[in-house]
Amino acid sequence: SPVAGRGRCLCKETGSNFVRRIYIEKLEVYPQSASCEHREVIVTIKQSGEKRCLNPNSEWVRRILTSFTKKA
Amino acid sequence: SPVAGRGRCLCKETGSNFVRRIYIEKLEVYPQSASCEHREVIVTIKQSGEKRCLNPNSEWVRRILTSFTKKA
Repeated sequence: SPVAGRGRCLCKETGSNFVRRIYIEKLEVYPQSASCEHREVIVTIKQSGEKRCLNPNSEWVRRILTSFTKKA
Repeated sequence: SPVAGRGRCLCKETGSNFVRRIYIEKLEVYPQSASCEHREVIVTIKQSGEKRCLNPNSEWVRRILTSFTKKA
């Protein structure tokens, strides 16, 4: 799971490729930046509020993000 | 800008259609839920840390989210 603290990547490992949609409270998407050279996607899980790193290169993560902003 | 408090939508208005990419620290994407019947996208602005609502139906918002998870 993500580590706090500025100036470093939040996710140490590549992260999961999938989380069941019904568990998603929100997704946080961090672009590449001075503090971390790769993009990061962090999911907050409903009820527990647990934060988990997702693999930004996973096809599923890409699809879920796009589906969240599809024309209503 | 977004309002705090559970059980309600965070964004009162439709939100901006565009924010310059270089100002984006992170994007938060909230799916439809019991507490808010429409999706919400909130940008955190670099340096100021200000949070601003974005229009989830804006083509630009969709494109920026997809670009953040494009194959590296």
